Amino acid sequence: MGRTSTARDRLIDAAGTLMGDRGYAALGVAEICARADVRKGSFYHFFESKQALTVEAVEAQWQRRRATWLDCLGGDLPAVRRIERLVRAQVDSQRADKRDIGAVQGCLFGNLALELSNSDEVVRARVAEVFDAQIALLTAALRDAEAEGSIPPGAATPATARSVVAQIEGMVLFAKLANDPDVLDNLWPQTALLLRIDGAESG
Amino acid sequence: MGRTSTARDRLIDAAGTLMGDRGYAALGVAEICARADVRKGSFYHFFESKQALTVEAVEAQWQRRRATWLDCLGGDLPAVRRIERLVRAQVDSQRADKRDIGAVQGCLFGNLALELSNSDEVVRARVAEVFDAQIALLTAALRDAEAEGSIPPGAATPATARSVVAQIEGMVLFAKLANDPDVLDNLWPQTALLLRIDGAESG
Repeated sequence: MGRTSTARDRLIDAAGTLMGDRGYAALGVAEICARADVRKGSFYHFFESKQALTVEAVEAQWQRRRATWLDCLGGDLPAVRRIERLVRAQVDSQRADKRDIGAVQGCLFGNLALELSNSDEVVRARVAEVFDAQIALLTAALRDAEAEGSIPPGAATPATARSVVAQIEGMVLFAKLANDPDVLDNLWPQTALLLRIDGAESG
Repeated sequence: MGRTSTARDRLIDAAGTLMGDRGYAALGVAEICARADVRKGSFYHFFESKQALTVEAVEAQWQRRRATWLDCLGGDLPAVRRIERLVRAQVDSQRADKRDIGAVQGCLFGNLALELSNSDEVVRARVAEVFDAQIALLTAALRDAEAEGSIPPGAATPATARSVVAQIEGMVLFAKLANDPDVLDNLWPQTALLLRIDGAESG
């Protein structure tokens, strides 16, 4: 049992890593199995298709990322500082990939959203749920910030939260394109502008 | 001659359209040829590889988009109004795709950036040049806006321009994910925040 679940988990991990790097269509089951050190003949014992594996990979990666989101946005700091911590964690994650594997990996969810939205409804729907969850978590923190008086009345909306996630996704695209996490150095001050926080508070 | 160049142009157009929809790896030469109504045997008469065709498709699409960028950013209006015109043109383009073909297509350059940055240096470099050109055009308009006193001193930088292009790319991702161009309704007010324009001026 232990060995079986380990092979399944390795396939999920391998799919997430490889698709973060190069997307969905470029990858075959054989390459995912090789990376996971699982015999190709076993693949369909665990997953009925590459699509099914991809949904699991999205799920697994969001479970991990969600823990970071909850850690960053939780606790007793003022809400704006908690949001800043979340934004800086996104930057740190890209920086760690560059240091550990030599390449800015970008965002698995963003990659799959652009590649598959018009061709794979199952993966698209799961990725949309992940972004909806991110926007909901951020909107809750924005409401705290509004209650604390640190963002203007009316700014704590899902639309504002979406603009922040869009800024993260767009800037991560540029960091991946340049393979340079320093592109993200201004991500927090840029976010502060979208939140209508006075520049002086955003340093 | 006329017929030859038409077939080549049709292949370039087909590649741009199909890759805007579904990315690079999902497409084979056969499908591109079928869409272009060109015999598959002729493909390698025109292009040495799918990669070479892709570079041409990026080039062709940027030539068209660049004309829009120059139109929007040129002329006698105040610079902020010219930038607003550019942002609204991006929204209109996604709205037109949804109306004409039923799907928000997103941005060919963004799609390729996320899919190929870590695996195809030739396409990556060309896409990076396109975004650099966008950032340079926008930075010039920001300098006009700064000279006109409509954005704060110091805001007219390539970093500010990149944050605007990142916001466009990130929000277009969400519009594609939802297949709903109305997601872009707030793109200009969001851009105005990044430009540090007073909200009252951004309506």
